[in-house]
Amino acid sequence: MKIIIVGATGTIGKHITEALQKDNELIKAGSKSGDLQVDISSPESIENLYKQAGKFDALVCASGDGHFGPLGSMKDADFRIGVNSKLMGQVNLVLIGQHYINPKGSFTLTSGSLAEDPIVLGANLSAMNGAINGFVRGAAVELENNVRINAVAPDVVEESPAYFPYFHGHIPVSMHRVTQAYLKSVLGSQTGQVYKVL
Amino acid sequence: MKIIIVGATGTIGKHITEALQKDNELIKAGSKSGDLQVDISSPESIENLYKQAGKFDALVCASGDGHFGPLGSMKDADFRIGVNSKLMGQVNLVLIGQHYINPKGSFTLTSGSLAEDPIVLGANLSAMNGAINGFVRGAAVELENNVRINAVAPDVVEESPAYFPYFHGHIPVSMHRVTQAYLKSVLGSQTGQVYKVL
Ligand SMILES: NC(=O)c1ccc[n+]([C@@H]2O[C@H](COP(=O)([O-])OP(=O)(O)OC[C@H]3O[C@@H](n4cnc5c(N)ncnc54)[C@H](OP(=O)(O)O)[C@@H]3O)[C@@H](O)[C@H]2O)c1
Ligand SMILES: NC(=O)c1ccc[n+]([C@@H]2O[C@H](COP(=O)([O-])OP(=O)(O)OC[C@H]3O[C@@H](n4cnc5c(N)ncnc54)[C@H](OP(=O)(O)O)[C@@H]3O)[C@@H](O)[C@H]2O)c1
Repeated sequence: MKIIIVGATGTIGKHITEALQKDNELIKAGSKSGDLQVDISSPESIENLYKQAGKFDALVCASGDGHFGPLGSMKDADFRIGVNSKLMGQVNLVLIGQHYINPKGSFTLTSGSLAEDPIVLGANLSAMNGAINGFVRGAAVELENNVRINAVAPDVVEESPAYFPYFHGHIPVSMHRVTQAYLKSVLGSQTGQVYKVL
Repeated sequence: MKIIIVGATGTIGKHITEALQKDNELIKAGSKSGDLQVDISSPESIENLYKQAGKFDALVCASGDGHFGPLGSMKDADFRIGVNSKLMGQVNLVLIGQHYINPKGSFTLTSGSLAEDPIVLGANLSAMNGAINGFVRGAAVELENNVRINAVAPDVVEESPAYFPYFHGHIPVSMHRVTQAYLKSVLGSQTGQVYKVL
């Protein structure tokens, strides 16, 4: 399969890349790193990515910024950091990518456990994760040519220790389990699913 | 209690208004109708609403547009109709309103069943509803002075027959049950909840 991985050099993305690279043709994309450059916050940049990549079988996005900060001082502009990157970045990868993907292809997006298991400073990410989960369910019933779409929703991962102080009582999840969830989406057969990794 | 109802003249809002008006001081708000005018898609307009309304005990929002249309031709600009109205409109009512609300006050937002029970043409609303549900969970753990926040997530309601052709096999929910969910949020004691009315 020809698979585009956005965020292939990231904490999560590098494990997805490692797991898929032996048996597939990978196109790694990042804003600075990778084979092709894309800024997911720009629809024009996404269109350009797909034009350069050509027809493909799977798109995995392990990228997308949110705003992490106190609700008490949160402003419209703060909240829109997540809207423009984590939400619209991933949504536009699908809205535009649906016109380039091969039949029976798949989209795999990344949300996170904060949608249902909130923490202090995380209101924007809780909202963005909930939006991605809703979007994959909504898009799954409309994608043509048996194209599938799922989200992976990990708790904080074991290789992101900088986040641990904010996730009181969470058990960081292993990169192996997180990676398996992406493989379940890309290599499996389901659609409209949110794979929680808790 | 002094209660601001945004969308007080709407299909859902008029029932909330009727149920609360006997025992409370209501401020009805709408873009054209009501006691005070507000455009929830504008943070400045929201700030202005709260300045005019003064300190209050509860804010109910039964308003917020989304984009209803085919995924196959959906564009960034279509999707952002929901982002700017249903999502950011309600989020900004909270981000700004938290600085005006009385201790022990409450915010009640409106999402909808499409977050988990998708229909064709509804991908934007599925995402926006999921975002609102995530946001109330995230905001609930941070609001100060015992201020509460919940969402009501109705299936299609019995007084919106124009939507029935798109909701195959759904049983439209009664206005009584929908209204009770809002009362549970405003008059009850819980926070961070999504009250599904199915
Ligand atoms: N880490 C966790 O514990 C955790 C838990 C749950 C969910 N998540 C979610 O998982 C996703 C990835 O997290 P991560 O920790 O692996 O992130 P990360 O280590 O910061 O990696 C981000 C990746 O995305 C690329 N990237 C950054 N900005 C981009 C842009 N504008 N356009 C395209 N690519 C861009 C980066 O490459 P360049 O530097 O080349 O741009 C990098 O490959 C995020 O959505 C995050 O919210 C993470
Ligand atoms: N109807 C359903 O079956 C159903 C089911 C699930 C969820 N919902 C959700 O429930 C909410 C209300 O739905 P509804 O059917 O009751 O809507 P509706 O009948 O169209 O009423 C909308 C209300 O919001 C006000 N409004 C419109 N635009 C506004 C703006 N920019 N700023 C402030 N107020 C504005 C309107 O008053 P003005 O005309 O004065 O602006 C009106 O009072 C929506 O979020 C909808 O998605 C509805």
